[in-house]
Amino acid sequence: MTTESPLLLALDLGGTFAFALNGALSAIRVARLDVVGVLTLGMVTALGGGIIRDVFIDALPPATFSDWRYLVVAAAGSLIAFVFGWRLTRLSRPILVLDAAGLSLFAVTGASKALDFGVGTGQAVILGAITAVGGGTLRDVLTGRVPVVLRSELYAIPALLAATVVVVADRTGVYGLPAALAAALLCFGIRMLGVRYHLDAPRPPGERHDWDEP
Amino acid sequence: MTTESPLLLALDLGGTFAFALNGALSAIRVARLDVVGVLTLGMVTALGGGIIRDVFIDALPPATFSDWRYLVVAAAGSLIAFVFGWRLTRLSRPILVLDAAGLSLFAVTGASKALDFGVGTGQAVILGAITAVGGGTLRDVLTGRVPVVLRSELYAIPALLAATVVVVADRTGVYGLPAALAAALLCFGIRMLGVRYHLDAPRPPGERHDWDEP
Amino acid sequence: MTTESPLLLALDLGGTFAFALNGALSAIRVARLDVVGVLTLGMVTALGGGIIRDVFIDALPPATFSDWRYLVVAAAGSLIAFVFGWRLTRLSRPILVLDAAGLSLFAVTGASKALDFGVGTGQAVILGAITAVGGGTLRDVLTGRVPVVLRSELYAIPALLAATVVVVADRTGVYGLPAALAAALLCFGIRMLGVRYHLDAPRPPGERHDWDEP
Repeated sequence: MTTESPLLLALDLGGTFAFALNGALSAIRVARLDVVGVLTLGMVTALGGGIIRDVFIDALPPATFSDWRYLVVAAAGSLIAFVFGWRLTRLSRPILVLDAAGLSLFAVTGASKALDFGVGTGQAVILGAITAVGGGTLRDVLTGRVPVVLRSELYAIPALLAATVVVVADRTGVYGLPAALAAALLCFGIRMLGVRYHLDAPRPPGERHDWDEP
Repeated sequence: MTTESPLLLALDLGGTFAFALNGALSAIRVARLDVVGVLTLGMVTALGGGIIRDVFIDALPPATFSDWRYLVVAAAGSLIAFVFGWRLTRLSRPILVLDAAGLSLFAVTGASKALDFGVGTGQAVILGAITAVGGGTLRDVLTGRVPVVLRSELYAIPALLAATVVVVADRTGVYGLPAALAAALLCFGIRMLGVRYHLDAPRPPGERHDWDEP
Repeated sequence: MTTESPLLLALDLGGTFAFALNGALSAIRVARLDVVGVLTLGMVTALGGGIIRDVFIDALPPATFSDWRYLVVAAAGSLIAFVFGWRLTRLSRPILVLDAAGLSLFAVTGASKALDFGVGTGQAVILGAITAVGGGTLRDVLTGRVPVVLRSELYAIPALLAATVVVVADRTGVYGLPAALAAALLCFGIRMLGVRYHLDAPRPPGERHDWDEP
């Protein structure tokens, strides 16, 4: 499976669109940003994870930058959010759903592209997760928030699981559209359950529980 | 036009010096920093944009790092600000003017170098802007502020315009010193007008106007 | 001396372990993080400096990422801190000592690896310091703090001194285990003295002294 496969490209562009909408909506919601700020934050959220991945695997210039399709999809998602997003700014659900969609799709495509570049098994899993959380982490750093990957309910864990499914499927020769979609749905489902029930990964032993609601 | 052209080098070193002064003055103004902090922030502001650009175009090691002239100019600007800057720390105008100068020069040289490395038209425009705003964005992230590119009056737009002028001039075969200076002056003029009259890029529709002065 | 020398590898893994413990303990101390957040922050602190160095010297994929030994050591240090760290969270001394150890070891190995890749003398010194302070800077940015390199007592200066010792020893042909350990001890000693006596690098002239304790 090459990086030019229609499957990988379609999933990757889908994740790019979801993250662009999410990043731009976050920009409108958390800060007083103009059209440039919204566009910048949407594109950083959408393209940042793939750029970090491509630095790690030495696939420079980054595909998400040199391929105009990613730029157009990321810009389009950001502008759509800019024009229509103000009706949604009091609703946190669309932002969370779009973030979970981007997370799931990028975990799959990130791990898949890493495998194409011949990295080790563990590295491919980690790179899937980095691709998935990288854009959102840059978004949060730029808007002055502690990144969601550090603080939120089951954020990195579903991405790591999806990437693991991809790597195992690849190593056993069964990777294809069904496996990719199953991995993405697994990630999306766990993430949405975590959001719905405020599930957290284990906290350090001995931590006072009253820290949970300061 | 190669990256070794005297024109590109002179403009690039000029932008480096302006951003080094700006970054170091910002460091003195916003935080209680010692000489290392001032030097670090000056050099990050001056060299950061070019380093990000060189990662994107796979021109590693970054020119602004491996070429000692950039290091010396960036360090000299930072140290000058450290020694003489305390007299200016209550004046925001020099910081803004230096920032606009660095922004303008780097938009031109960033787009020009990107073209030399054969990137697409749209990518060259974006890389000009990234070169221009990258160092200041790192400066703001390191000092805990929301980056000026996300919040300020007409910051990225003049950089994008200057880069567009460079790319159009290059594609039509008229790029040279006059076109480069015209592009930089265009960016500088729009930026300073934006600062003077608090002009902003368009805000999202439906946004309450009382957000403007919280 | 190649990057595969046992000396460089041992010192580098030692620094990785120290920084992983430090980053994970910082995560437990400053923020309410779950196991993923602690592991992420430990690994970013441990591996970030080396990754930035490898981008600068075009040694991609980064050694600290593609070599599983670094990943295992960084993950192990983070998990040890996660399990046992809560007993230490009110003690700031272990965090400071581990940070000084990582700083010292990475300044030596960072400069040494940069020399192996043929960078200039000044660049090797700077890259030693970047390797030493890079992981901690990412840790601080991700947790919303102004990086220690910008604000603290003699942080970057001992790293620059250790890297200078390495570069001078290399250029004069006497680099080896004794010189490497001497450089690391020099850095560690100065850093701990700075912490103990609150020594600072020089402040800008004219600065009001009552800024020191706001």
